[in-house]
Amino acid sequence: MEMHSSPSSVLVFILITLITVTNFITICSLPIPLVTPLQSSKQRDTKSNSKQSNKTLFTTHFFPQELDHFTFQPKSFNLFNQKYLMNSTYWNKGPGHHGPIFVYTGNEGNIEWFAENTGFMFDIAPKFGALLVFIEHRFYGESLPFGNNSYKDAESLGYLTSTQALADYAILIRSLKQNLSAEASPVVVFGGSYGGMLAAWFRLKYPHIAIGALSSSAPILQFDYITPWSSFYDAVSQDFKDESMNCFEVIKGSWDEIITKGSTKKGLWELSKTFKACQAVQSVWSFRDWLWSSYTYTAMVDYPMPANFLMPLPAFPIQEMCRRIDVFPKGSDKIDMVIAAANVYYNYTGDQKCFQIEHKSDPHGLDGWNWQSCTEMVMPMTITNESMFPPYNWTYDDDISSCNSTYGIKPRPHWITTEYGGLRIEQVLKRYASNIIFSNGMKDPWSRGGVLKNISSSIIALVTEKGAHHLDLRFATKEDPPWLTQQRNQEIAIIQGWIDQYYQDLKDVSS
Amino acid sequence: MEMHSSPSSVLVFILITLITVTNFITICSLPIPLVTPLQSSKQRDTKSNSKQSNKTLFTTHFFPQELDHFTFQPKSFNLFNQKYLMNSTYWNKGPGHHGPIFVYTGNEGNIEWFAENTGFMFDIAPKFGALLVFIEHRFYGESLPFGNNSYKDAESLGYLTSTQALADYAILIRSLKQNLSAEASPVVVFGGSYGGMLAAWFRLKYPHIAIGALSSSAPILQFDYITPWSSFYDAVSQDFKDESMNCFEVIKGSWDEIITKGSTKKGLWELSKTFKACQAVQSVWSFRDWLWSSYTYTAMVDYPMPANFLMPLPAFPIQEMCRRIDVFPKGSDKIDMVIAAANVYYNYTGDQKCFQIEHKSDPHGLDGWNWQSCTEMVMPMTITNESMFPPYNWTYDDDISSCNSTYGIKPRPHWITTEYGGLRIEQVLKRYASNIIFSNGMKDPWSRGGVLKNISSSIIALVTEKGAHHLDLRFATKEDPPWLTQQRNQEIAIIQGWIDQYYQDLKDVSS
Repeated sequence: MEMHSSPSSVLVFILITLITVTNFITICSLPIPLVTPLQSSKQRDTKSNSKQSNKTLFTTHFFPQELDHFTFQPKSFNLFNQKYLMNSTYWNKGPGHHGPIFVYTGNEGNIEWFAENTGFMFDIAPKFGALLVFIEHRFYGESLPFGNNSYKDAESLGYLTSTQALADYAILIRSLKQNLSAEASPVVVFGGSYGGMLAAWFRLKYPHIAIGALSSSAPILQFDYITPWSSFYDAVSQDFKDESMNCFEVIKGSWDEIITKGSTKKGLWELSKTFKACQAVQSVWSFRDWLWSSYTYTAMVDYPMPANFLMPLPAFPIQEMCRRIDVFPKGSDKIDMVIAAANVYYNYTGDQKCFQIEHKSDPHGLDGWNWQSCTEMVMPMTITNESMFPPYNWTYDDDISSCNSTYGIKPRPHWITTEYGGLRIEQVLKRYASNIIFSNGMKDPWSRGGVLKNISSSIIALVTEKGAHHLDLRFATKEDPPWLTQQRNQEIAIIQGWIDQYYQDLKDVSS
Repeated sequence: MEMHSSPSSVLVFILITLITVTNFITICSLPIPLVTPLQSSKQRDTKSNSKQSNKTLFTTHFFPQELDHFTFQPKSFNLFNQKYLMNSTYWNKGPGHHGPIFVYTGNEGNIEWFAENTGFMFDIAPKFGALLVFIEHRFYGESLPFGNNSYKDAESLGYLTSTQALADYAILIRSLKQNLSAEASPVVVFGGSYGGMLAAWFRLKYPHIAIGALSSSAPILQFDYITPWSSFYDAVSQDFKDESMNCFEVIKGSWDEIITKGSTKKGLWELSKTFKACQAVQSVWSFRDWLWSSYTYTAMVDYPMPANFLMPLPAFPIQEMCRRIDVFPKGSDKIDMVIAAANVYYNYTGDQKCFQIEHKSDPHGLDGWNWQSCTEMVMPMTITNESMFPPYNWTYDDDISSCNSTYGIKPRPHWITTEYGGLRIEQVLKRYASNIIFSNGMKDPWSRGGVLKNISSSIIALVTEKGAHHLDLRFATKEDPPWLTQQRNQEIAIIQGWIDQYYQDLKDVSS
C-alpha cells in the first residue's frame, strides 16, 4: 500500500498509525496504554489472591551489566543495573545437592509483573527443589541503562535488542552460579510471549548454559513469510465466530457505522458520550483502537477461569462479550452492542465510571516495545476481508518508512530469521537442537506464529485447543480444567526428564 | 606475576611484551612479522605449484555489510565492503540440482592466503558439485570498514569481534543464496585455526544456515581453565624432544647464553653478526623472539611433505632443525647451533643473505589479531620449567593491565566461554549439537586446545598423531602419507553423509 497525496491518504495514514499502535500494544506480552492507573491499582489488589504475597514471592537484586556485549568500544563497557528477582525458599542446595535453577527470561515490561503472572514456576519449585530467578529485560522496568534518557533516541535505544538481552542473561546466570557456588546446578529457562521467544532462543544459542527451555506462547515463526500474514487477525476473528456468528457479524459491521458517525464534530461528541469517554475524544480512530484492542487482548487472555493479567476478567471472556452482544434485540444499534462487549474487557468489575479512550497510560513499563517492533521484531500482519476487522495491507516499504520517520533508523526485517532461524524449522531442529517445549493455546491468536507440531523426541509442541496466552505459566487454581492440569503435568514430566538426564550425565562424568 | 619497581621489572616487562608479541604472532593461523616481502614474493612463486593458478582459483567480489549487527544505533548501519572469493566451476546447480555451497569462514588475514592454503575444498569440489565461497573476516585484508583508519583506536577496532564476523557470514550467505536462487542448496562451512573456531561456532550458532562444519586445528578449548595453561609450549617442547633429546637440551640451554652475551653493547653487535641481522639489533630480546618464533611456527607446520604456508620448508622440518643441531660436535657453541636450526625456518631455500630480526613486516594483513587477543581471544599460556622455553607465568591481571595500556579497554577473558561454551563441552554437545568434524594433528601445539575425542555420533574428532596445523585442509600432493589421505577420506565420507541426509530430508518435506 503506497501513500498518495489524495484525501484518502489521510485515512490510510491514520490507519497505518492505528495498525502500528495496535501492533505495538497487541504484540507479545501485551497491552498497556489501556490499563489506567485506577485499573492498575486494582490489579495490585487482585494480586493478593495469589498463593503468596509479593513480599514472600521474591527478593530483589541488581547486577552490574555491560552495555554492549558485541563490541569493544570504550562505551560498551558502561555499566547499568539489571534487576532480577530471586526465591530460594525451596532450593535443594548443599553438599551433594545440585538443585536446579529455574530462570525466567524477562520480556518487555516490569519483571515483577511477569513474575507474578508466572505462578507455574512457584508452584513447581518445591517439587524440583529449585531456585527461582526472574531477570528483567534491559531497557524495561528499573533496568534502564540511561535512566530517564533511555528512550530518548536511537543513540541510546540502539542497545535495546534481543541479542544483547540474551547475552545479559548468559552473563548474569554464569555469574550467579559462580557466586552461589552452584556450578553443577542445571539451569532451565522459562518464558511467555516475547519472553518465551527469548527462552527458546536462549536454549538454541546458549545450550551450554541452559539444559532446556519452556517456551510458552512464543510466536517465533511470526517473521518473514513463514506464517501467513493474515493469521493473527484471522485467529482473533475465528475466536469470536466460534462463539457466535451473530457476535462476529455485529463487530464486523460496526466499524463503518462508527467511522460514519464520527465523521462530524457532533457525531464525535455523541460517540464520546456513548462510549463514556472521560474526555471528549478528538479522533474517531481512537474509538476504533479502543474496541479493536479489547477484542484482541480478550482473545489472547480468553482463559477458562477468572484471571487478571491485563484486566480483571471472568472465565471465558469472549463468551461473555458475545453473550452481551447476542442479548440485544434484533435491529439494535451496533455501536451500543460493541460497547457492551468491550465493557467486559475494560470494566468487568463495573466500577469504571468513564474511560480513557485517548492518552492511555502504561503501568507495566512497556514503552520500549515500539522501538523493538521498529528494529528487529518486524512481524508482518495483514487483515483480510474475511476477518471481523477492517481490511489492511501491511508492506515492508510502509513499515520501513514509518519507523524511519519515527526513529531515524531502518528496521532489519529479516534479521530475526537470520540470527535465530525459523525457516524450515522442523528440518533444521530435528537434526540439531534438543530440550525445548513449545506450548500454545489455540484461543490465543499468537499461537498461529508458534511451533505447533513436535519437531523431535525432545522438541515438543504442547497444544491445547482451549488454552490462551501462556495460560500454562499461570498459578494453578481450583477452576483449572483437566486439560490444563494435564498440560502442566506433561511439562513437569518433560522438565524432570531433562534434569534426570543431566544428573545422570554428571554422574557418568564424575565416576 | 606483578610488576615491581626493581631492576628485575625491566626483564619482567620485556618478557611480558615478548610473550604478548609471541602470543600474538603464534596465535592461531599465525605468524607474520616474520615473513619478509622477499619471502612473500617467493611464496607467491611457490603457489604456482598448486593445481590451479590464482586466476582460475577464484573470482573476487564485495558485499555491502553493515558495521554492527547487534545494535541499532544510526552508525551501526554504516556499510563496508566485505571481500569474498568464489569458484563455481564445479557447481551442480540447475533445475532439480541443489549442489552444495562450501564456505570458508575467513580468519585473521587476507582471504586469498587462506583460500590458497585450503586446497582441500578445491580438491573435493568436483566430487560434490560444490560452489566454493571464501569470505574475508571483517577488519582484515581489503575488508577494512574504515580504510586506513580501521586500526586507529578502540572506537573503530571495537567492531572487530568474532560475533560480528559470524553474523557477517550468516547475512552474506543468506543473501548469496537468494541472489543465486540457491535457497535449497545445503551449506557446509570449513575453517582452519581461528577460521576453524569460527566454522565450529558458526554451526553451533547458525545451524539453520550451515548443515555442518569441518573445523580444523581449532583450539576452541584454549580458554579459561579448560585446557592446562602450559599445554601449548609443553607441546612444542615435546615435538623437539620426540625428535632428539640433545636438540631439546641445546635449545633449552641456549636462552641464558644469548641473554648473557647480549647484555653488553659489544655482545649485541657480535650477536647481530652471528645471527646475520640486516641491521644492528637493538635489543637482545629480539634474538630470543626470532628463535622462539622459529620453533613455535615450525612445530605448527611440521608437515610430512615440503610445503609453503608460512615459509618454504622441507618435509618434517623439526627433524631437519634437530638434525642441524645434532651434527655439531660436542661442546660447540649453543648459539651457533640454534641459529643453524632457525635457518631451516627462515632460510631453507638458502637465498636469504641477512635477516630482519627486528621490525619485521607482515604480508598477510594480520594486524588485527593483537586487538582480538586483547579483547575476546584471551588464551592463557604459561611456560613451565620442564619446557624448552624460559619459564613464564601468565596472569589475568597482567593481561588486563597490558591490554588496557595499549588500547584503553579491558579484555573480557570469560566472554568466549560464555558466548560459545567450552566448559564441559562433551556433556553439553552430546545432548545438543550435530554435524561437526574437529580435526587435529598432534604435532601442532594448538591441538592441545582442540576437541580430541568424539562427542557423539555426529560430532567427530579426527586426530592424526603426525599431523600438524590444518594439514588436512591443504591441497593433496603426491607426497601425502596414507594416514593423511585416510583422514581426508573420512572427512569426505562424513560430509557426504550430512549432505545425503539433508537431501533426504528435503525430499521428505517436498513429498
